[in-house]
This record gives sequence, structure tokens and C-alpha cells, in this order.
Amino acid sequence: MNSAWVPKDPAYEARVRESFSRQTHMATLGARIVFIAPGEVHLALPFAPQFCQQNGFLHAGAIASIADSANGYAASTLAPPETDVLAVEFKINLLAPAQGEGFLACGRVLRPGRTLTVCQAQVFTTGTTERVLIATMLSTIIVRPTERGGAGAA
Amino acid sequence: MNSAWVPKDPAYEARVRESFSRQTHMATLGARIVFIAPGEVHLALPFAPQFCQQNGFLHAGAIASIADSANGYAASTLAPPETDVLAVEFKINLLAPAQGEGFLACGRVLRPGRTLTVCQAQVFTTGTTERVLIATMLSTIIVRPTERGGAGAA
Amino acid sequence: MNSAWVPKDPAYEARVRESFSRQTHMATLGARIVFIAPGEVHLALPFAPQFCQQNGFLHAGAIASIADSANGYAASTLAPPETDVLAVEFKINLLAPAQGEGFLACGRVLRPGRTLTVCQAQVFTTGTTERVLIATMLSTIIVRPTERGGAGAA
Amino acid sequence: MNSAWVPKDPAYEARVRESFSRQTHMATLGARIVFIAPGEVHLALPFAPQFCQQNGFLHAGAIASIADSANGYAASTLAPPETDVLAVEFKINLLAPAQGEGFLACGRVLRPGRTLTVCQAQVFTTGTTERVLIATMLSTIIVRPTERGGAGAA
Repeated sequence: MNSAWVPKDPAYEARVRESFSRQTHMATLGARIVFIAPGEVHLALPFAPQFCQQNGFLHAGAIASIADSANGYAASTLAPPETDVLAVEFKINLLAPAQGEGFLACGRVLRPGRTLTVCQAQVFTTGTTERVLIATMLSTIIVRPTERGGAGAA
Repeated sequence: MNSAWVPKDPAYEARVRESFSRQTHMATLGARIVFIAPGEVHLALPFAPQFCQQNGFLHAGAIASIADSANGYAASTLAPPETDVLAVEFKINLLAPAQGEGFLACGRVLRPGRTLTVCQAQVFTTGTTERVLIATMLSTIIVRPTERGGAGAA
Repeated sequence: MNSAWVPKDPAYEARVRESFSRQTHMATLGARIVFIAPGEVHLALPFAPQFCQQNGFLHAGAIASIADSANGYAASTLAPPETDVLAVEFKINLLAPAQGEGFLACGRVLRPGRTLTVCQAQVFTTGTTERVLIATMLSTIIVRPTERGGAGAA
Repeated sequence: MNSAWVPKDPAYEARVRESFSRQTHMATLGARIVFIAPGEVHLALPFAPQFCQQNGFLHAGAIASIADSANGYAASTLAPPETDVLAVEFKINLLAPAQGEGFLACGRVLRPGRTLTVCQAQVFTTGTTERVLIATMLSTIIVRPTERGGAGAA
């Protein structure tokens, strides 16, 4: 459905990587970019015991973190130069316990827009066991002129 | 509206604190419990530069983490003994940039249920500047018999 | 929290009523405006058997309809002249069956914005029985220059 | 992904049609079932001027109504006999104005569960013009023993 989407910034990949490198939360969690294409970004996260909930599964907030960033960067691939993207809101359904060797958050643009872009992320387990869909997220993302002193959700 | 809600587990506070102590993600973020009452739990989180997004604000996933835990433990205060709570889904609106000395996530039960409990969290900035509402979250939480080997969202 | 919000359009009430009168869906459902104030609009809906789900309760889509309009018009009270409001997305939790003589949807602005406004609606039963909170909705609403030929969510 | 899902009720199609026939709201809107398969139900809705918002597009509540029913019946195809399904919550993103000759809501199970089933619906325009994705909905649905005197969301 998105075959015709063309990035408005030829340097979209460098821009995603540069912004990602400034997200200290991603480095702290241990997430890394594994795929970038127009309208789509995938992030991988190894399991780590310091980000768990009470039963030893990865905390929903950690899963939400990589899904949110995957969706934000998916939106960023289609945004014009000199803009920044910010999540306005997201909703996540947790479909199975976040247990596994690692996790893959696949963010994808459902509808790009001048002001708002809507994305969906699927989060899967990775590793030697069967791949399981553990979460799905719908995000609304605002595209705005870059201002490092930055502002809020609108 | 919730004045008549009575915890079904007299030891609700100890149970919340015990479960919270097992959430390594909360310890890693630096969150702590500041208030527990029937149907309501507040968590405080200091700002920390290692959990930020690209503009130096706290990452939405870190904000979502404390709002999710605040809502889960609010639900837990009204749950029977020998049960565990798990978020099925949540939706968060990010209302202002997460900049401040610290953050307070106030989780509150909107409707308790035998199987499902619905909670809402408000997240505020704390510190010497004016208190700002930076996020609001609606969560659906399932109450289930405790099983440490645990399972998923339903 | 919203005591200082001042409508940017002195004719905000007339504008809400005029727009509401063009929502044929509200007339078809039988909804009417019962309260308008800066940042807040309440809609009343009588129960009607032709808008039900399989068990004879009002359909969730009918409840969502009045909550969505209540939130949209709450946002509209704070918007500048010559603008229109459109829901970008909403999330609703259905807390109890929609059975009763009537329903009241109370929409309220949580955070007004130049581009995006976030609102929350609570839907209650009305009539001779005890008032029950049956639903809560969080909405993201975009404020845009009026164009009757109109367009979409962004 | 759902190729192995087998309906637990061999009469799943009859049961969906019987329940749908009791949803007066669907008849009032003019919706009809166009596709039923394990884990998937599609509903068609013609445009009608009496269900519109202020600009003459179909009201978001009408779109939400058919998406909600499509998701509920998709869940119902995988539920055991003598059970009923109820939406606990849903979130919808409105991607484009609901203008067109008609609309198709395609509901699909993302994850079936004993207690909770998560579904996603896509709503498209239909007719002589290009098909446009106008909305996407994520729903959480509870499966419960049938009781016509019925109850709420949990």
C-alpha cells in the first residue's frame, strides 16, 4: 500500500541514525536499529534482567519504549528535512508475556501526513524459540520544524 | 466516587510494596512509591539523562513505564489475595515535554472489576517550577490468580 | 486546572450550536446539547431501541458517537474563529452496560493547543436509577482553518 | 499468521448472523455482513446523509460503530458455543474524511484468547473512486458465558 511513498529528505537514513544516537534511553535499554526503509524502521532489543516487571518478563514500559521509537523513526523517514517528529499519543495492546532472548519492534507508517503521521508497530520475540507477536501499537506522530530547545505534543 | 471501595486484601500495601520491589525496571529508572491508598498509587521519578529522547526530554517510554506501574498497583490495591495484575493494554497522551527535575505518576482506579479493572494515570512534573500535567494514561488491567511462572495478557 | 482558559472566539457558544445543528448524526440519535462552557460541553441522549447491540443495550458506537461529539465541541469552545475541529483519534473504555433511560456525555478539555487539543469525556446513565459511569474516552482533536469542502485527519 | 485458527463453534457463521440480526444499530445504519471466516468479519455500510458530521462526512461514531461490530464478530467466530463477546475498549485513528459511496469495515483477530481477544479493523471507502483507508481500530474484546440479561465490560 505504501509502495509509492518517497522520502522527502534524501538523507533520511542518516537523519534517523543521528537522532537515534541522541536517544540515551535506547542506548540504556540496549536497543539498536536493524532496518531502515521509507516508511519503516525496525529496532532490536536483547532481553535484560534490569528492565523487568514483577514476574521476570520485560516491563511493558520497555516494550512500549522500543515500539514508540520504531514508530517515530518510521514517521521520520517520510518527513521533510529540518523537521523533528514527536509522539502525540500511542496505544499498545500487550498480547503475550515479554519473555524471550530478544525482541524486535517493527514500526511502519499507515498514513503519512503534512502535520500528523499515523504508524503501527508490531513487537515480536526473537531467538531460538518460535517467533511470537507480543504487542501491537498504534501511534499518532506530529511533524514539526526542528527546534532543539524543543516543545511539547503540539 | 470511589469512597466506598474497600481492599479485598487487608495486606494490600505490603503486597504492592513486595511486588514493586521485584520490578527491576522501576529500580533501574529510579522510581519509588510515594503514596498507596485503596484504588490509588503514586510513583515518583527523578529526571535522569540516560532515559531521554533526542531533544533531552525524558523518553515517552520512561513516562509510560511509571504511569503503567502506577495504574497496575492502583488496581492491585483492590484485588483479592493470591492474585496478580497485568496490563492488557494502555493508551497515553503526551501533553507537554517531559522536562523537569522530576515526575509524579498518579494512578487511580476508574472502575474495579472481578476480571478487568480500568485505571487512569496523570503524570505531572515536580520540583521548583510550576507543576505541569505532561501525560494522561488509560489502562485496562486483568486480575488473575498468582502464578510466578506467569503468563500473558489473557 | 482550566479556570484561566478563555475562549478565543467570543461567539463560541453560537458557533458550537451552529455546528452541532449540522451534525445530522446527532439529530438522528436524538442527542441534544445541555451545557456549554469554556472547555466543556455536555450532550444528553435518550435511550432508543433502534441503536442497540445484541443484548438490548445501547451500541458502543452510539455511546462513542456522543462522547466524540462532546469532546470535539469542548475543544471547539477554545478554538479561534474561522477554525473547525476534527477528531484525529479516540480511545474509549466501556465500563458498564449502556442500559438506562438516558445518557449524558460530559466532554472536557485536558490540554488546549494551537494545533492539537486533548479532551476527555465521561459518559453516565441518567434517569430515576443511580447514576453510573459507563464509559470514558480520551480524544486527540486537530484545530484547522475552516474549509467546508473539508478534508481529513491531518 | 492465523491460518491454524479453528472455530470452537462449528456453527460460528450462523451464530454471527443471528447476533448481528439482533443489533438494531446495524440495521438502522444500513450495515450488512459481506464476509465471514474464522477470525475475520467484514461489514459494508452505504453512505447516508442522516449519519454525518458538520461537514457532510460520515460521523466518526458511525465509522466506529461498524469497525466495533466487525471486530466483535471477528472475535465471535473463534469463541466457544454459548458465549457472548463484548468490547471492553477500542481505539480508532481517523486517517481520512469518511466521504464515499460506501464503506467497508474489515475486522480481524490479532490474538485469540480464552478470556480476551484482540482485534484490528481497517475501514476503507468503496465505490467507483479509488479505495482509501479511512480508519484503523484496535479493540479488546471479552468472551463470556451467554446471559441475555447481560452485564458490562467485565
